[in-house]
Amino acid sequence: MAALPLEPTDHPYYRNTKVTSLSVTDVRYPTSLFADGSDAMHTDPDYSCAYVVLQTDHPDGHEGHGLTFTLGKGTNVVIAAVNALEHLVVDRNVHGIFANFAAFYRTISSESQIRWIGPEKGALHLATAAVLNALWDLWAKLEGKPLWKLIVDLQPEQIISAIDFRYIRDALTENEALTILREGQTGKQDRVREMEKNGYPAYSTSCGWLGYESDLLRKKLRTFIRAGWTRFKVKVGGSLDDDIRRLTIVREEIGYDKLLMVDANQKWDVPEAISWMQQLARFKPLWIEEPTSPDDVLGHAAVAKALAPLGIGVATGEQCANRVIFKQLLQASAISYCQIDTCRLGSINEILAVLLMACKFGVPVCPHAGGVGLCELAQHMAFIDYIVISKSLDNRVLEYVEHLHEHFAAPVTMKEQNYVPPTAPGYLVGMLPSSIAKYQFPNGPVWKDLMQHKAKPV
Amino acid sequence: MAALPLEPTDHPYYRNTKVTSLSVTDVRYPTSLFADGSDAMHTDPDYSCAYVVLQTDHPDGHEGHGLTFTLGKGTNVVIAAVNALEHLVVDRNVHGIFANFAAFYRTISSESQIRWIGPEKGALHLATAAVLNALWDLWAKLEGKPLWKLIVDLQPEQIISAIDFRYIRDALTENEALTILREGQTGKQDRVREMEKNGYPAYSTSCGWLGYESDLLRKKLRTFIRAGWTRFKVKVGGSLDDDIRRLTIVREEIGYDKLLMVDANQKWDVPEAISWMQQLARFKPLWIEEPTSPDDVLGHAAVAKALAPLGIGVATGEQCANRVIFKQLLQASAISYCQIDTCRLGSINEILAVLLMACKFGVPVCPHAGGVGLCELAQHMAFIDYIVISKSLDNRVLEYVEHLHEHFAAPVTMKEQNYVPPTAPGYLVGMLPSSIAKYQFPNGPVWKDLMQHKAKPV
Repeated sequence: MAALPLEPTDHPYYRNTKVTSLSVTDVRYPTSLFADGSDAMHTDPDYSCAYVVLQTDHPDGHEGHGLTFTLGKGTNVVIAAVNALEHLVVDRNVHGIFANFAAFYRTISSESQIRWIGPEKGALHLATAAVLNALWDLWAKLEGKPLWKLIVDLQPEQIISAIDFRYIRDALTENEALTILREGQTGKQDRVREMEKNGYPAYSTSCGWLGYESDLLRKKLRTFIRAGWTRFKVKVGGSLDDDIRRLTIVREEIGYDKLLMVDANQKWDVPEAISWMQQLARFKPLWIEEPTSPDDVLGHAAVAKALAPLGIGVATGEQCANRVIFKQLLQASAISYCQIDTCRLGSINEILAVLLMACKFGVPVCPHAGGVGLCELAQHMAFIDYIVISKSLDNRVLEYVEHLHEHFAAPVTMKEQNYVPPTAPGYLVGMLPSSIAKYQFPNGPVWKDLMQHKAKPV
Repeated sequence: MAALPLEPTDHPYYRNTKVTSLSVTDVRYPTSLFADGSDAMHTDPDYSCAYVVLQTDHPDGHEGHGLTFTLGKGTNVVIAAVNALEHLVVDRNVHGIFANFAAFYRTISSESQIRWIGPEKGALHLATAAVLNALWDLWAKLEGKPLWKLIVDLQPEQIISAIDFRYIRDALTENEALTILREGQTGKQDRVREMEKNGYPAYSTSCGWLGYESDLLRKKLRTFIRAGWTRFKVKVGGSLDDDIRRLTIVREEIGYDKLLMVDANQKWDVPEAISWMQQLARFKPLWIEEPTSPDDVLGHAAVAKALAPLGIGVATGEQCANRVIFKQLLQASAISYCQIDTCRLGSINEILAVLLMACKFGVPVCPHAGGVGLCELAQHMAFIDYIVISKSLDNRVLEYVEHLHEHFAAPVTMKEQNYVPPTAPGYLVGMLPSSIAKYQFPNGPVWKDLMQHKAKPV
């Protein structure tokens, strides 16, 4: 099927809008000072991002803002990768990009020389995500809509034209995708209203970081239960004894009527994952997240098969490189929960492919969030999935972490532990310039101070 | 099994040797001007590398030299990644590294913050390869041996202690690996002598680039046949008609008594790969290389199953990210030929894991070479595999491309289309300082000239 041209708008300004420049900034928050975000593999993350701004010649001064999430060191490598992609986007007419977004995705994700250092994975694909996130933000702003609304208002054929189907046609053809999206049009407005009224169900990861002491863990859980939370995720994989001690505390505090998920962050070999989780099965976790290498499709399938009789599902995705890995996880029945990441995959273009494959294979999508900016981005995926793709909330929960939202101009809004659809135009909706200035690495005042006075390793 | 400490030497200088600095240089050769190396996905490669030098405080001035191969643009991203790893290697005692090389591999491949931008894939893993290649070069120089000889002289327990078995134990345990290596000790000296006498069989890719016109193709083939070559690889995947035209020429020139392999460089979807190769089956290729995405284990398995009745094997590896992907390709019977790459995998540490898994699964290893420096590096892998691991030459051929060897201080030596074991100490054996200076990007004279006078896009 040939790509179907989009006609996003007839406004003459829009048709003539060009990207005039790309700039990218290294922004890091020293979260490792407080063990926020610590897990079995990432013991001292400084939640960070490569923050991209695309300027345009639009008379209203519209800019596209996008980011990709990182853990501190290495952010500068992603920034080098963003700069390597700059020549592919600057001077481009944005209508030309949006009208055949799949072709542009191919241009940027498979540039003849640059693709060698990926392809479609690692630092290069994180950079691709940041640039494409900024373009989708720009498109949504030009339309004056939040990103999720831009997508759910598109015609199925328009959505298809944004997806590069290369490497996935053995699992999902263009026509199959079109059928799913056409079925998603039925009752669409009802689901929009439902989301606006009730929001999308969330779970909290804020209580369960591996670095938290018992007292802090208990105190945090109580605070969250009082606030009404009923779904919790806890890190595991440090040591089996410690996991048992901590999960005992968690179940003591939350009881067995609330949802518990556990997350090993790739700590284990396949046989180790199975035996370790057999020891934790009595805590009745809904899923084990990232039991082993994110590249190991067959390994996840083996873990899933072994744990199914115990009622434990397998979840993964935040470090799964691209749609080809997700395709195989679905083909091999390796996951019961599909955890797309808005900064790891090649933005909406590639995420739409995964949402559609997950729908075809009947696997619920539970996006990865947290970090910095991931909640702001991931909520759009949940709304899109529910409103025009899966049309289901069964077994679906969206991750929520409470920290770092204060750095965003339009942070996520929660209503009784549910995400409320944002109304501001755009995707990320922008970080506060004051935050960017303060936390810019290495020259922002926060980092200058840390490096001078506290001997923080950098 | 705990890692077994190495005792590489008792020389006091060696015990005290420290890495004192790391430097890395962007070296690019403008090969795209001549369509050398062009294929279905990489239409205009400038064969390039990130070239790493580790200086030490050794009184004899020993340095470790390593590189990772790239295609031009994006090399600077890999250089940023090398620099991000610098703090993990500088000031380290090299004996401490070599004595438990698996632990050091883990340190550099899974640093708590940096791993997010991989893990073990893409620009970061290419950088890891460059740094580790330089360390192995240093070790071999300290021992005064070529790299292959350093390895084949190690005890099986010492080889094991260099391998990170995380994520592969479901396919190969430490004890299984040890058994293979112990069996590899039998007849070892005979195989060393055999290699020194006859060399390792090679095939040529120099005739079959996609960008070559018919006349040039025919002329090149005749030259190579006159020189005694009997094994050829040709690029495919541009268009079916053109492939048929070119393969017709190839078989006209080489006949059906010589080996022909074809290489699609990831051009196809899975169903497309199968139907396209069914059309090319009459040319009797030994293998189809990279039929689809390097991440698609299940896709390669499907292609392998469909093409087996036609006598065509599947080969892949030059862009397979790490040992976890190779593990699955072997587990799923997805490849008949295992094409490790010395700059894509995490150097000897990770390559040894793949060689051992391939041996267990009975799949021949045919290393990827060509590019710049890859022949110089890959030959060591072939010798190691034959002498102490697989002990077999059946169905094994090592890629050879004739260009760019002149930039190396000790380029590969061929004897009747076979690789002759190098005798100079080290792994890569170093690029000529004059070449580095001339082709350094963007300030070397070659690039300054191209940018000023020929408007070469950069």
